[in-house]
Amino acid sequence: MVAAQDPESFFATAPPLRDADAVDARLQEFIARNSNNAGGGGGRPIVCVTSGGTTVPLEQRCVRYIDNFSSGHRGAASTEYFLKAGYAVIFVHRRGSCQPYCRFMPDDSFLKFLDVNEESKVQVARSHETVVKKSIGDYSKAMECGSLLKLPFTTIFEYLQLLRMVATSVSSVGLRGMFYLAAAVSDFYVPWDSMAKHKIQSAGGPLEMRLSQVPKMLSVLRNQWAPLAFCISFKLETDSDILVQKADMALNKYKMNIVVANLLATYKDEVIIVTNGEKNTIRRCNTDEDLEEQIIILLTQKHSKYIYGSQMGATRVQTEL
Amino acid sequence: MVAAQDPESFFATAPPLRDADAVDARLQEFIARNSNNAGGGGGRPIVCVTSGGTTVPLEQRCVRYIDNFSSGHRGAASTEYFLKAGYAVIFVHRRGSCQPYCRFMPDDSFLKFLDVNEESKVQVARSHETVVKKSIGDYSKAMECGSLLKLPFTTIFEYLQLLRMVATSVSSVGLRGMFYLAAAVSDFYVPWDSMAKHKIQSAGGPLEMRLSQVPKMLSVLRNQWAPLAFCISFKLETDSDILVQKADMALNKYKMNIVVANLLATYKDEVIIVTNGEKNTIRRCNTDEDLEEQIIILLTQKHSKYIYGSQMGATRVQTEL
Repeated sequence: MVAAQDPESFFATAPPLRDADAVDARLQEFIARNSNNAGGGGGRPIVCVTSGGTTVPLEQRCVRYIDNFSSGHRGAASTEYFLKAGYAVIFVHRRGSCQPYCRFMPDDSFLKFLDVNEESKVQVARSHETVVKKSIGDYSKAMECGSLLKLPFTTIFEYLQLLRMVATSVSSVGLRGMFYLAAAVSDFYVPWDSMAKHKIQSAGGPLEMRLSQVPKMLSVLRNQWAPLAFCISFKLETDSDILVQKADMALNKYKMNIVVANLLATYKDEVIIVTNGEKNTIRRCNTDEDLEEQIIILLTQKHSKYIYGSQMGATRVQTEL
Repeated sequence: MVAAQDPESFFATAPPLRDADAVDARLQEFIARNSNNAGGGGGRPIVCVTSGGTTVPLEQRCVRYIDNFSSGHRGAASTEYFLKAGYAVIFVHRRGSCQPYCRFMPDDSFLKFLDVNEESKVQVARSHETVVKKSIGDYSKAMECGSLLKLPFTTIFEYLQLLRMVATSVSSVGLRGMFYLAAAVSDFYVPWDSMAKHKIQSAGGPLEMRLSQVPKMLSVLRNQWAPLAFCISFKLETDSDILVQKADMALNKYKMNIVVANLLATYKDEVIIVTNGEKNTIRRCNTDEDLEEQIIILLTQKHSKYIYGSQMGATRVQTEL
């Protein structure tokens, strides 16, 4: 098996992203639009929100794959609050995962909230009307302003190629760029060139699998793709004993500006915002409230300080020269 | 590692199904209701449609899992046509997969087909009105008749426990029972008692995994759980060279009445219905048409013949005695 553990060989052996040119064109157009007069000054801040889990195919003609638990709820909710805060959002999401302004949607009984009225028109039941109307309004506004771009992925190959494309583009806006990496990204994968072509047959007894480590792209993002961007990564664990320690490690090793640490059992109710020398726990008080609202308020404040601090630093350096 | 390859040890070591008693009560009530006067004669025929892929958790507090490609579209469409044909349907489906009468739903732009009208009511856009209205009507009818029971699963453990519960219950209706096993069921799994408790850490280099074979429950379904039921299993392959041969093998080995064989690349357009000594290819002529309509017409005819044939056989035996 080829251990494609460095970024170059990962990309060299990955099946190429479909319609890459068209995606890139949409991306350039989006960044240009949100860098003109939009939002005043030098343009809107631009955040890339990644959301949902990546899959790892086990066969080239894929029937089976490894997946990561993620509904995409956090990414979708966060996107709404970033838009509300005046950001332009590139929503890099798992196909079929939770979408911004669609969180009210029931999982499996969608038809229950539609009624046929007296004039035989299909309308949303009164019980859901307020929330749906607000969602349609907010969604339409975001689409009209051109401040939301949705880019879907399924596999780890698609995700990392998209992330690279977005990051190298967003680097053009310098400090105004932010990465909010909420996607649940696979740590292990099967390199494309060592993958079974057809469905693995089950007659041959137990299945032995050897998965390679996915190269740690956070370092590449920070050092090469978008060195000036404000970077937030997520750390999900199931064991509370190692959570903060792992978050601290990620902060230092990958030079993230912030790590959002959460536990599988309580991720909807509580997160710890880890920065250099500071740990803030954010809790929600009741289940009607979105934890993401508080998270995004805190992060956008820290991003503003980062921009201001860096500019002041640069001015000081210039003055001193 | 314990190789839990026999059905007993699979069930003995699986984490128990949540709310099993409540599910069983709903099931008993459903079968009783559809066995009285419903549909005339001795009651409606009852089909268990399984749909969507099962997951195989890799950790007990599950962050990662192996999944099987399946949108659940075939199971959802087939459920609609079984209901239309007068069957009662137990829809055993993957949580979040495609639902009956919801196939018109767009993947990710749901809000696009809702409008706010002049009176400020939220209604379905005119372009989608006809299809949505028909879906709501058909869905309401099925729910009012009490001829649709939806039971969700996620993991292979939940799926097989549900299937056993449904099968042992449906066995009470004898020949009137049918199994339409369209779910994409994992062939390999990690037995619960040999599974990592916490999220597997990625720092330790490549991941070696040894997966056990899932016991072949089709034999148990046929021989023990519901010996008189009419059984249809599915065979999905990616390699056309082995498809029909694998379908024939499944037919004989598991004593299925019918195997529906399809290829990943063409499963929406073409299936081969394999019975003893007969192979019928069903193709759809245009993309507006559901392949499932033709499949269900053929299968319900074969089920009627099976019931009639078995009863005639029984009568003949009684006469001859």
